[in-house]
Amino acid sequence: MLPISKEGDGGANWIEALFTAVSAACVTGLTVVDTELYWTPFGQGVILVLIQLGGLGVMVFASLIGIFVVRRLTLGSRLTTAQEAHAEGIGQLRRLIVSIATIAVVVECAVAIVLWLRFWLGRGEEPLHALWLGVFHAVSSFNNAGFALFSDNLMGFVDDPWILLPLATATIIGGLGFPVIMQILKHAPHPRRFSMHTWLVLTGTALLLTVGTVAIAALEWNNPGSLGAHPTGTRILDAFFHSVQTRTAGFNALDIGAFEPETLLVMDVLMFIGGGPAGTAGGIKITTFGVLAAIIIAEVRGDPTVTVFGKRLSRAVHREATTVALLSVGLCYAATVAIMLLTDIDHDRVLFEVISAFATVGLSTGITAAVGTPSQLILILLMFLGRVGPITVATAIALRPRRLAYELPKERPIIG
Amino acid sequence: MLPISKEGDGGANWIEALFTAVSAACVTGLTVVDTELYWTPFGQGVILVLIQLGGLGVMVFASLIGIFVVRRLTLGSRLTTAQEAHAEGIGQLRRLIVSIATIAVVVECAVAIVLWLRFWLGRGEEPLHALWLGVFHAVSSFNNAGFALFSDNLMGFVDDPWILLPLATATIIGGLGFPVIMQILKHAPHPRRFSMHTWLVLTGTALLLTVGTVAIAALEWNNPGSLGAHPTGTRILDAFFHSVQTRTAGFNALDIGAFEPETLLVMDVLMFIGGGPAGTAGGIKITTFGVLAAIIIAEVRGDPTVTVFGKRLSRAVHREATTVALLSVGLCYAATVAIMLLTDIDHDRVLFEVISAFATVGLSTGITAAVGTPSQLILILLMFLGRVGPITVATAIALRPRRLAYELPKERPIIG
Ligand SMILES: [K+]
Ligand SMILES: [K+]
Repeated sequence: MLPISKEGDGGANWIEALFTAVSAACVTGLTVVDTELYWTPFGQGVILVLIQLGGLGVMVFASLIGIFVVRRLTLGSRLTTAQEAHAEGIGQLRRLIVSIATIAVVVECAVAIVLWLRFWLGRGEEPLHALWLGVFHAVSSFNNAGFALFSDNLMGFVDDPWILLPLATATIIGGLGFPVIMQILKHAPHPRRFSMHTWLVLTGTALLLTVGTVAIAALEWNNPGSLGAHPTGTRILDAFFHSVQTRTAGFNALDIGAFEPETLLVMDVLMFIGGGPAGTAGGIKITTFGVLAAIIIAEVRGDPTVTVFGKRLSRAVHREATTVALLSVGLCYAATVAIMLLTDIDHDRVLFEVISAFATVGLSTGITAAVGTPSQLILILLMFLGRVGPITVATAIALRPRRLAYELPKERPIIG
Repeated sequence: MLPISKEGDGGANWIEALFTAVSAACVTGLTVVDTELYWTPFGQGVILVLIQLGGLGVMVFASLIGIFVVRRLTLGSRLTTAQEAHAEGIGQLRRLIVSIATIAVVVECAVAIVLWLRFWLGRGEEPLHALWLGVFHAVSSFNNAGFALFSDNLMGFVDDPWILLPLATATIIGGLGFPVIMQILKHAPHPRRFSMHTWLVLTGTALLLTVGTVAIAALEWNNPGSLGAHPTGTRILDAFFHSVQTRTAGFNALDIGAFEPETLLVMDVLMFIGGGPAGTAGGIKITTFGVLAAIIIAEVRGDPTVTVFGKRLSRAVHREATTVALLSVGLCYAATVAIMLLTDIDHDRVLFEVISAFATVGLSTGITAAVGTPSQLILILLMFLGRVGPITVATAIALRPRRLAYELPKERPIIG
C-alpha cells in the first residue's frame, strides 16, 4: 500500500498495509484501520481489486481441483497420454475461468444496480458516488469479503432491507460455490439430477441459515445493545442478515461487541463451518461438516455404510473430512491460546476473533485493531491458512496415489 | 442420603444428596457441599463405598466389553455353541472380577499405608483417624474420584510430597486401565509383546503428563495465586501433581479458581482426553485421541494405511473414534451454552466446569456450588453421560454386525 493509498500525510504503517492487503485478498474483511477514512479512493480501489482477484482466484483454483479429483475418481485412466490431458486441460481451464467470471459479473452487476438505485434514490447520495458504493459493496458481498465503505460498516442501514437483502443474496450465492451454481443453472428443472455435493451444500446452507436466524433472534431479541433496540420487523431482518454473514461475508449492521456471549458461541460454530467448497466463503466447508454428521448418524443408527442423499459416501472422504476438521480445530485452539498469552482479552472474544479470521468471516467484537502487532501477525497467518489450508490439505489427500504394497497385521485399541 | 449421613439437624437437601451420590458413583468429585463438614462419618463411608463400586464397576464392565470386542475380532467363530460361550463367559467373568479387585486392593492398601504413616507420624493425626484418612484418600485416588476429607481439598498439603506423590501414583495406575496393568504385570520384561492398545495408553499418558506439567509450570510460574506463592521445588511438585489430576482424579492442592485463563484452556483439553479405557479415568480416552492423531499424521504424510506402533490400525476404529470424539464435543458444547444461558458466569469458567463434569475430573473453579439447581442437574447428567457415554457408544458401534446386502453407487463431495 503506497502513500497514494492513504489519506493525509505519509505512507501507511507496514502492519496496517499488510493486514489490510491480506484481509482483502483472503476476502476476510477484518480491519485494523477505518476503510472509509484511512484509505483514499485509490486505496479503496486497490482493496476492491484484491477482493475480486482473491475471490475469483480461489473459485477457479478450488473448482479445478474439484474437477480433477472427481474425474480421477470416476474416469481414472481415460486420459491416456500426457499430451491429450494437457490439451484438454488448457481448453477446460479457459472455459472454467470464463464461466466463473460470467457468474461473478452477472451477480455483481445485478446487486450493484439495486444498491446503486437505493443509495442514489433512497439514501440521497450523488449518482456517481452511489454507483461506486453499489459496485464496491456488490463485489465485497459476492466475494464474501465484508469490507464496507462506512466507518461503522453497515450499522447505518440496520433497518434498510433494500441494502441488506441484496447484500445477503449475493453473499449466499457466492457462498454456494461454483459447482453448485453450475448444477443449478444446468439442472434446475430436474433437481433429481443434482449430485450429492450439491444436495449437501443446498440443504446445509438452508439448515445453517435457519439455525442461525432462530438462534440470533432468540438470544438477542431483548438485548438493548442489538436487536432489542429495534421494532419487530427489523429484529427479524437483522437476525436473518447476521445469520447470513456467518456464511462467511462478515458485514455487520449491529454492534457485534454488544452481542451476548452465548450468541457469539453459536456464531463461532456457524462461522467455523462456513460455506460451500469452491466458492468465495471460508471455514471448513458445509460438505466437511455434512460428511462428519453423516458418519456419526450412520454409526449411531448402525448402518453398514454411510449413505447421503441416496448415494454411498466414498470411504476415502471419511478420513479426509476428519483430518480437515481436526487440524482446523487444532489451529484455532493454538491461535486462541497464543493471543490470550499476548493480551488480556477474555477467552470468548479471542476465540470469536480467531474463528472469524480463520474462516475469513471478518466479524469482530472490536478487538482486532487493539490487540497489537504480534497478535495481528497471528491473525494474518490465520486468514491465509484459513483461506488456502483446508482446500490444500483436502486436495493433497484426495489426489495422492494409494497403493498398498503390503499390509501390516491388523490390531485395534479400545475406544471410549 | 439419609439424615444419618448429614451433620446437624434434618436430612440433606435432595439436590445436594443426588449431586453427591452421582458425583461419587461416577467418580467425578465435583461437590456442592463440604465433604468434611456437611456429611457425618457414616455419610463419608457411603461416599467411599459409592466410589469403590463406581470405579470397580466401570473397570469390570469396560474390560468385559473390551475382551468381547477383541475376541470377536480375532477369534470370531471359534465359539460354536451358545452353551460353551455361556459356560466360558461365567468363569471368565469371575476371573476378571477377581483380577481387577486384587489389583485395586493391592494398590489401595499400599497407598493407604504410606498415607496413614504420613498423616499419623508426619502430620500429627490420631492413629485411627489417620488410618481413616489414608484409606479414604487411597480409594479416592485409585478410583480417580478426587473426593477429599478436607474443606479445602488438599490445599493444606501443597508442599507435602509424602501426601501428593502417593496420591499421584495411585491416580496414574488407576487411569491406565485394567488391560494395560495386566499386560505390564504379565509381559513387563518383554515390552515388545505389548499390544498396540498398551503402547498407545503408555506413551499417551507419558506425553500428556509431560505436556501438562510443562504447560502448568510455564503458565503459572509467576502467578501469586498459584505456583508463584511457593519455592521452586514446590512449584515443580505442584505442576506435576495438577497435571496428573487432569488424568482425571481432580484433587487440587492449589486454588484452581486463581489459575490463568490460558492454563484452564490447556487443562480443558487434557481433561477432555482423559485416561486409558477400562480404567477409573474419564474423558474420551487416550486411545481415542491417539487414533485420531494417527489418522491425521497418516493423511498428512500420505501413508496408504494408518500404522500405529508397527501395527495397522483396524479401519473399523476410524469412524468409531471420530464418532466418540465429535459426539463428546457436541455434548460439552450444548451443555456450555445451556449453563451460560442459565447463569451469568464467564464462558471459560463454564467450559472448564462442563469438561470437568463430562470427563469425571472434579476440578472446579468454584462455581459448581453456586450455579443453581437447573445447572447442577445439567452437570449431573454430564457426569453420568461422561462416565457411561463414550464406552457405550464405542461398544455399540464395535459389536454391531456389519453385513453389506448391497452397495449404493459411490459418490464424493468436495471437502475443505
Ligand atoms: K469475509
Ligand atoms: K474425578
